[in-house]
This record gives sequence, structure tokens and C-alpha cells, in this order.
Amino acid sequence: MTARPENVHQARILRLLRQEGPRSRAELGDVVRLSRSKLALEFDRLSALGLVEQAGLAASRGGRRSGVVRIASHLRFVGIDVGATSIDVAITNGELQVLDHLSEPADVRAGPTAVLNQALKLLGDLRSRETAAEIHGVGIGLPGPVSFREGVPVSPPIMPGWDRFPVREVMSEELGCPVLVDNDVNTMALGELHAGLARSVGDFLLVKIGTGIGCGIVVDGEIYRGVSGSAGDIGHIRAGEHGPTCACGNTGCLEAYFGGAALARDATIAARSRRSIFLSERLAEKESLTAEDVGAAAASGDADAVRMIRDGGRRVGEVLAGLVSFFNPGLVIIGGGLAGLGHALLAEIRGVVYQRSLPLATGNLPIVVSELGGTAGVIGAAGLISDHLLSASP
Amino acid sequence: MTARPENVHQARILRLLRQEGPRSRAELGDVVRLSRSKLALEFDRLSALGLVEQAGLAASRGGRRSGVVRIASHLRFVGIDVGATSIDVAITNGELQVLDHLSEPADVRAGPTAVLNQALKLLGDLRSRETAAEIHGVGIGLPGPVSFREGVPVSPPIMPGWDRFPVREVMSEELGCPVLVDNDVNTMALGELHAGLARSVGDFLLVKIGTGIGCGIVVDGEIYRGVSGSAGDIGHIRAGEHGPTCACGNTGCLEAYFGGAALARDATIAARSRRSIFLSERLAEKESLTAEDVGAAAASGDADAVRMIRDGGRRVGEVLAGLVSFFNPGLVIIGGGLAGLGHALLAEIRGVVYQRSLPLATGNLPIVVSELGGTAGVIGAAGLISDHLLSASP
Repeated sequence: MTARPENVHQARILRLLRQEGPRSRAELGDVVRLSRSKLALEFDRLSALGLVEQAGLAASRGGRRSGVVRIASHLRFVGIDVGATSIDVAITNGELQVLDHLSEPADVRAGPTAVLNQALKLLGDLRSRETAAEIHGVGIGLPGPVSFREGVPVSPPIMPGWDRFPVREVMSEELGCPVLVDNDVNTMALGELHAGLARSVGDFLLVKIGTGIGCGIVVDGEIYRGVSGSAGDIGHIRAGEHGPTCACGNTGCLEAYFGGAALARDATIAARSRRSIFLSERLAEKESLTAEDVGAAAASGDADAVRMIRDGGRRVGEVLAGLVSFFNPGLVIIGGGLAGLGHALLAEIRGVVYQRSLPLATGNLPIVVSELGGTAGVIGAAGLISDHLLSASP
Repeated sequence: MTARPENVHQARILRLLRQEGPRSRAELGDVVRLSRSKLALEFDRLSALGLVEQAGLAASRGGRRSGVVRIASHLRFVGIDVGATSIDVAITNGELQVLDHLSEPADVRAGPTAVLNQALKLLGDLRSRETAAEIHGVGIGLPGPVSFREGVPVSPPIMPGWDRFPVREVMSEELGCPVLVDNDVNTMALGELHAGLARSVGDFLLVKIGTGIGCGIVVDGEIYRGVSGSAGDIGHIRAGEHGPTCACGNTGCLEAYFGGAALARDATIAARSRRSIFLSERLAEKESLTAEDVGAAAASGDADAVRMIRDGGRRVGEVLAGLVSFFNPGLVIIGGGLAGLGHALLAEIRGVVYQRSLPLATGNLPIVVSELGGTAGVIGAAGLISDHLLSASP
């Protein structure tokens, strides 16, 4: 068990070093606004706690050269990103830089014991490759609703057997270190905040378009979870008046129009009706079609596939336009497996949002595709536990 | 110019006394978590600054009786609520209790000079009736977008002549005290937070249905304004696929379906086509119809008026259902002039939200009509300036 900072000044220094990398004491003093002697005292304590270390001398600012400090180089955080069909595990240093990363196909429907054992095995492989055997904390993202406070999934629709399974408790006992569990859109949003396009943005939305559709909400640099932890669950917002029936029982839900599952369904219909020759041939080769096949069809110029992506982008854009008017974010990032479907999707989303939302809300609003791709989830999960461990202990 | 608290402890004590009323020093000590001697020191400073005062002795808790303190009884805050067709001005004490309140018809289209002079006259009348002539700060709510930071309205659609008029500066100079200006949905939300149904709720929405429709968003007890201050501008969210054309140029905006202006338009059509006998007769008596006439028609059992209200409630409910899924609030309060249209409106909104939003988000979600009615805006405006004056000076 590693020590945690003892007060808010120490926590502030650690977060700065995590975000900005090594800094001279003089530079940190300018930001933290402590007297020279108080700052020296806090550094001594952090050093004694094993949380910071010396890293040489800075260039002179005119007087004596100031010592450079950095977050302790032995710190290790782990991010685990459980997807519907894959597991990613990464080890980061204290600055949340990924040191090593493994990814494997997995089936979340196999239940928590099988899936968490697979994650533990991947983590074991990573640790055997890494010199530092000790890990200081683990963050886990799951593809369904999570009670963050309790560290358990709550009625997750695509995760049979996981309902209220004590993921945090089991993993913490297994690994002997602190563990936090969250919904994967929240960990992806944290990944963007720590290492992605949102590094300098306080209020932003991360829209994940994968098998389903969800949204991570960041207010003033913190994940906003809502009163019962379900904030950002936008997949069941109505996106049309006479839409397809959704698994939730309602009609016209955004997810019933678009997302990996909806696109696979529409692709199969287009293939069977032979409306799309490309998709018909693909279906003849394989047992079933996925969103990737639609992407490949669109890339080959298949008109039906392009139409599916544009229609989907328009629905996402219409829901997002309302959320932009309501929330007035500084940035919207599109992530998840379908974010890679190409420019047509992004162009359609942008077109609708810029046309439908208020000018005051869209004037300086970038809508972009994540540059982190598959690593947003693991970096964010590591960020989640590091946020906890680098905050002042109560 | 009254003093402001010197540090966060003093600010915390003042906010507690404002919200909870007079308290014994012992009770405050339990909450503020300062040592007995430090607490005594802060009380002495607050007393010297004229911000708190003694109010007798508390009942014994076993030992020496503890002194009761309260927020200084001479403190006076002013709330000014400028509506499209009315001005409300109230004076409150330090606990935000309304001591006196005046309301007059007004026309916001008369421009800032005429309207602010009318507000100053009302305030003069109130001050001549009240013994305490000094006021310590003024909050102002305006019916349009406001740059909170600059204290000016920004392109407000129904307020010709007000664009970027320096309301805060002019009023502060005129009154010789600090002034803050905000959008009226934000001041209404603050009113609910300080004196209404949201007193114990951190995250909630205040939906104002007046001439137009807007939403105040409270996150963790603070107004959320978004990156350019336009958060909560929900009147132009699309509420249907082939809706009426809105003043903003788009079709299907929520405001184009419902709100005071839309209801007056629909009522006039129903009256002219003689579909509604009640409204036809009303229109023959008066020059024009308003939302109140629709309310009166519905109360008399006019089927067309009831249908208009239910249709409008359904549109509001559909937009709100999406926002509830996204934001997962702890409470939704319906306010504004049309909130009084009766149970049919509330029933329709509730029906759609409870049916369309996620069960996790609606499980414990009350949707209620404001109990403060016309005073939410003035109490909230007074609360806005008191939040500022009772926070630690930088």
C-alpha cells in the first residue's frame, strides 16, 4: 500500500507533476502559491512518502539553479478496459504514459469470473515483462451501467451474470491494491482528459459509438455521473418518431437506429435483399455481417453502405444537437469502434449539429474524432485510480 | 460597501447561517470542524466585520450554555426579475427571506433605459417603506442570454435595444453597490435552491415555460452555465420532424410548438376557425388571445384548449426525457407563467418522461411544479448576489 498525499497542497503538486511532467521547484512554486519554506516542507514530506523524487537541476533563471522534481518513477497504475468483445490491459507510470499494453478478444457474456480471470492473466503477463513488480492501483472500465460508489455493475444489458457482481472488491482482494470500477464511457472521457484532445478543456462530451451508444460528461475537469450514476446514457434518447423497436421496448431509440448492432442488422437486410452486391458477397463468405463490413462496403463505394452511415450520422447529430444546446460544451469527441467508419459519419454529425444547435453554443465548438482510439479506455482507467490515489487522504 | 468574509471558514459559517438560520456556536462548531479557539477567533472577526451578531443563548447541551449567532440582521439584498411583460423587485434580509416585494406590468421592448429606470423607481418605493436604507448588493435576472462574466445581455431575441447594454455597470454605478446580472432561468433555479423545492437537492433542472422555454441547470449546488454561457437554452431543441417554423429559422423547435407565444398563436387559429367556441367568444371580446385564455378555456372544459395543452406537454416531455437520460438529475421543477396551466400539462410531461427515460434515471425522480411561483426569480437574484458577497474575497 503506497502512501497518499497528506493535504491539498501535496495533492495539487502531484497532479501538476502527473499532467505536466518534471518541473523545477521554482516553476511549481509559481503555480502552487506557497511560500518558499512551506513548499520545501511539502516536497520533503512527498519525498519521504515516496511520491516524488529529484531529477537534476533546472536551467538558471538568474539566481541559484532550482532543483527539478518529478512524480516518483516507481509508481505504476493499471488500466483494464473490458469491452463487449475484447479486453485491454495496460500498465502506466505515474505520468499516465503507457509502458506496456496487451489486448485480446474476449466475450463479456462469459460472465465476471471468466472475464476477470482473463484480465488477471493479461496483467500477470504484463507484470512478468516489466521490471517493477509492484502496482499501486487498478482502474477498470465496464461496458454497462456501474454504481461507481459500490464498484458493481447494475443491470447491465449486454453482460449476463454481472449484475451486482462485486468487481471492485474481488479484484482488490486478488491484487492487494486499491481498485475503482466505472462505466467505459467515463474511463474513455478520462483518457481524453489526461492524454487526448481534451487536455486543456474543462467541459466536454465524449460520445462513444460502439455496439451501443453512450456519452461521457466532463464538468470542470471531473466526470459528471448524475444522481444515480446513469448520466450520459444517451443510447435510448428518441431519435425519430416512427423508428425501429429497441431492445429496451421503446421505439425510435438512437441505438435502434445506429451503432454496431443496428448497423449489422441493416447490413444483413441489405445483403439478403441483394440491394448491396458488396454486402451480399460478404454475407455469402461469412456467417454474419458486422459494422466493419459496412465500413469496407462504403470504402469500396457501395451506395447502400454510404447511405446507412450517413443516416446514422444524421440521427446521432440530431440527438447531439439537443445536448449541445443544453450543455454548451467546449468540445465534442467521437470515439468507439464506429468512429473509424470514415469521414462521412463525422461530416454528417457536424452538419446537423452546426445547423440545429444555437450559434452561441456552436460558435467555437470543435467536433472531432478521438486520436487515442483503443487506448483511451485503458489510459482513462489508469487515470481514474490515479485521481483517487493522488488526492489527499481524508 | 460592506466587508466580505476574509477566508473560506468565515464564508462557510455565513452560508450555513444564511441557509439554516440562527445557530448556537456549539452546533456550528460541529459542522465547520474548527477547533473551539479557532472558531471563536473567526466569530470575533465576522462580528467586527459586521457580518454576524449575537442572538441570545442556546439551551444547555449538558455544560455551559452556548451563544446563538445569526447573520447580521441589517444585511439587505435586492432581487430584480425583469420579465418580458413585468418587473418584480424584492428586498430580502441576510437569510434571503423576502421583506417586501413589488410587481408591475412592464414592456421589456421599451429598452434598457426605460426598464431599468422603472426597476430603480420600484426599488426606491421599497426602500422608502423599509427602515434599513442601506442595501448591500443587487442581483438582476433578464429574459434572454446574458454574459454572466461581463454582466451584459448578448443578442437577446425578445429585448430590442438591450444587446451588450452594460446593465451591471450602469446599475452598480447608480446604486453604489455590487450588482450581478444573469439569465432569468438561472436566477429562478437559484430561487428554488435557496427557498424552494430544491433546498436539499444538489443536481436539478428548472424548466421555465413562459413566452419561450429555457432551463436552469444546477450541478452540485452551483449554476452550470457552459463554456459560452448558453447552457440550458432548450427552446430550440427539435421536438418533432415536421413542426412549425420557429423565429430562429429552423423548423420543429420546442418553442415553436409550445410556450406562451405558440399557445397564443394556436388559440387565435382555433378561435378564428371557430373550432373552439370559448376562444372565439374571448377573441371577440378582446383584441388578442394569450396563454391565460387557453388555460381558462381548458378549465371550462373546452376540448380544443385541453388538446393544445396536452400536445404541448407531450413535446416538452419528449425533449425533457432526453435531457433526463443525459443528465440524470435528482429533481425537475416546472416553473414560469405556463406552469400554472393546470394538472393536464404536468400529467402529460410526467407521462412521457417516465415512459421514455431510462428506469435508472427516473426511479427516484420527482417532476413537480414550482411552489415559489413569481417569487423564485427575485429570491434567486438576491441569492446570486449574496453568494458573491458571502464568498471569501480573493
